[in-house]
Amino acid sequence: MSDPLNALLGKKSNKYDPPDSPRSVGWTTPRRVRLADQSNPLPLDCGRSIWPVEVEYETYGTLNPERDNAILVFHALSGDAHAAGWDRNAEHDGRLWRGKRPGWWDSMIGPGKGFDTRRYYVICSNVLGSCYGTTGPSSTNPETGLPYGLRFPVVTLGDWVRLQRRLIDHLGIDRLLAVAGGSLGGQQAMEWALSSPDRVRGAIVLAAAPRLSAQGLAFNAVARRAIMCDPGFRGGDYYGETSPEAGLGVARMIGHITYLSQASMAMKFGRQLRNGNRLGFGFDPEFEVEGYLQHQQQSFVERFDANSYLYITKAMDYYDVATWGDGDLARAAMLSRCSWLVASFSSDWLYTPEQCFEWTEALRSAGRQVAHCDIKSSYGHDAFLLETAQVTGKVAAFLDGLK
Amino acid sequence: MSDPLNALLGKKSNKYDPPDSPRSVGWTTPRRVRLADQSNPLPLDCGRSIWPVEVEYETYGTLNPERDNAILVFHALSGDAHAAGWDRNAEHDGRLWRGKRPGWWDSMIGPGKGFDTRRYYVICSNVLGSCYGTTGPSSTNPETGLPYGLRFPVVTLGDWVRLQRRLIDHLGIDRLLAVAGGSLGGQQAMEWALSSPDRVRGAIVLAAAPRLSAQGLAFNAVARRAIMCDPGFRGGDYYGETSPEAGLGVARMIGHITYLSQASMAMKFGRQLRNGNRLGFGFDPEFEVEGYLQHQQQSFVERFDANSYLYITKAMDYYDVATWGDGDLARAAMLSRCSWLVASFSSDWLYTPEQCFEWTEALRSAGRQVAHCDIKSSYGHDAFLLETAQVTGKVAAFLDGLK
Repeated sequence: MSDPLNALLGKKSNKYDPPDSPRSVGWTTPRRVRLADQSNPLPLDCGRSIWPVEVEYETYGTLNPERDNAILVFHALSGDAHAAGWDRNAEHDGRLWRGKRPGWWDSMIGPGKGFDTRRYYVICSNVLGSCYGTTGPSSTNPETGLPYGLRFPVVTLGDWVRLQRRLIDHLGIDRLLAVAGGSLGGQQAMEWALSSPDRVRGAIVLAAAPRLSAQGLAFNAVARRAIMCDPGFRGGDYYGETSPEAGLGVARMIGHITYLSQASMAMKFGRQLRNGNRLGFGFDPEFEVEGYLQHQQQSFVERFDANSYLYITKAMDYYDVATWGDGDLARAAMLSRCSWLVASFSSDWLYTPEQCFEWTEALRSAGRQVAHCDIKSSYGHDAFLLETAQVTGKVAAFLDGLK
Repeated sequence: MSDPLNALLGKKSNKYDPPDSPRSVGWTTPRRVRLADQSNPLPLDCGRSIWPVEVEYETYGTLNPERDNAILVFHALSGDAHAAGWDRNAEHDGRLWRGKRPGWWDSMIGPGKGFDTRRYYVICSNVLGSCYGTTGPSSTNPETGLPYGLRFPVVTLGDWVRLQRRLIDHLGIDRLLAVAGGSLGGQQAMEWALSSPDRVRGAIVLAAAPRLSAQGLAFNAVARRAIMCDPGFRGGDYYGETSPEAGLGVARMIGHITYLSQASMAMKFGRQLRNGNRLGFGFDPEFEVEGYLQHQQQSFVERFDANSYLYITKAMDYYDVATWGDGDLARAAMLSRCSWLVASFSSDWLYTPEQCFEWTEALRSAGRQVAHCDIKSSYGHDAFLLETAQVTGKVAAFLDGLK
């Protein structure tokens, strides 16, 4: 889920295409649209509804006259609408990281890439509750005129998809050629395929299981606790004050460990010390891996909102695709009418191959068309972003088969 | 590493023998002895030396006239000298948990148990830097008259063993029948066997690898960061004030996840909600696994010192038995002259079977006598405390072979 990781992991790094490259979608500009207001608030799974709701999104490629070449891609926990190319607004929202780097899935989206923008119209929007342009806990609560904080409703993947449907309506698209994502993004693809079976021809699910395991729930619980027990959290009302950076940093460090694998950490960092061979006999970060995590959390707290971390991990905890079948995965799978491409990654321990196969088996037992690729990789959960060479061919062939 | 876990994990729970049971060592009283003072300070690996040093220890069984039936056992991260039986001092040091429960390895130490106290004299001491009676960061610094805090020297497993040797000298024991422990305790057994080859006849190493992996280093780094960025930490000088409980709690939650396994968490907690089937749409602990971790951290912060957590995890990070062979495990192994029993546990992901086997292979290639048991268990790292039935027979037979 991290780009600095690419650089650090060395040879598996995705080489970024500069904006003037024929393989880049070039400069991009995020757009915003209001998709819920007082007259048509967005109903939510918690029973409440919300307005106003703004959505930030980007698009790449061209919608064809038949309007049948659109692909909706979904970001994971810490992502945004900027999936490909280079953002013109380098300092958009005061967040310096944007524009400094290409979109989070630039390796897959562009002319001649897995999602080939010469053929497909690719859309990505920021999820409800995030902090990158779509309405979230840092947005103004119309009832108080102040930022929501924890008065923002607890949102679900179902809510995210409900809002994305409004975006697709707004764009005048009846049926998506495909929905696609990794991790939490893969679960959004599942949710789309089950909640709007007539509007999806193909679903691409990478490194995503039907639901998070007990261990995954546990990691999220610790991350949220770290944020909420930071005195800077102030019950979520920290806007305009010092934010709970320390807690958010700890949360991010925990997350990072779960995105890598034992093997990738051993290969890259081992037990190397940052300063030669001498032990420091002190408590400053001393091993390379400590320095790496320290750097990761520092850059993360500068670009992410702690409340959004709470809301998005909660949505991640709550998601269980089996809910569509009252707890029965195969019954849930029967609701879908699309073709499926499911990929798992051998060293992923957040959504293990075994857990990913559960969904494939459910689809098979429901008689649905599904291809499962179990990709050998040492890169852990992050492999869905790093194993571009292996993923590109599968995705391109799958999309070809849908046309 | 947790006893409440036993209760929660249900059927694998070790049934505690009450103090009047023929299988219990009964009531115990910890003893303390000063093993370093101004005239003979304890030299440390960091280059400093320390005095005074008090050591808390317990013994079970009787030292025979030949003084050759002594077994030194070692506790892991959060343990103490109270390895077996029931502590008379229920409120010793104001820490209520003592006396409320039997020693941390009571399932293995007692009449007729793996370490049979009818035959063996079993000794356990609290490590240097801990908070259970042995000198540590909460002790008074003779230079200032105040608690050490972070002025306490960073100590190593080598230092721990150096101090334990003084204890064994004090007890008039020339040669130990065996040294034994799990996790960090198993590494102390390695350290004893290599640093004092003439004083150890057998070494029992459970769930312990030659060194911690990069992933293990990463978890410890996050745990320490959680403690040190708690405003209550005050640079380690929090004694007499509110301690950094929130940070220590987060650290403990992280640790707990690493002691269990994906499988054991799935079996015990799954995705069960604490209050029926309805989602709460809020941020209170909601899944069973969240409630469990919450309970664990709460009871831990009441009984453990945050500074000790820093020092002991640092010792854990630093330890690498290969240092004895200038980085070569087999060369290190050649220093030992004892017999070895090494046990790994199939679902342990903190010290994986593969990592544990490295030490066994090194011993074999050095021509040392070693039995390796790879024990099938779903209980993760904690299996070394929980798989009593499987461990008892191996230990008893191994000790028999030494007599």
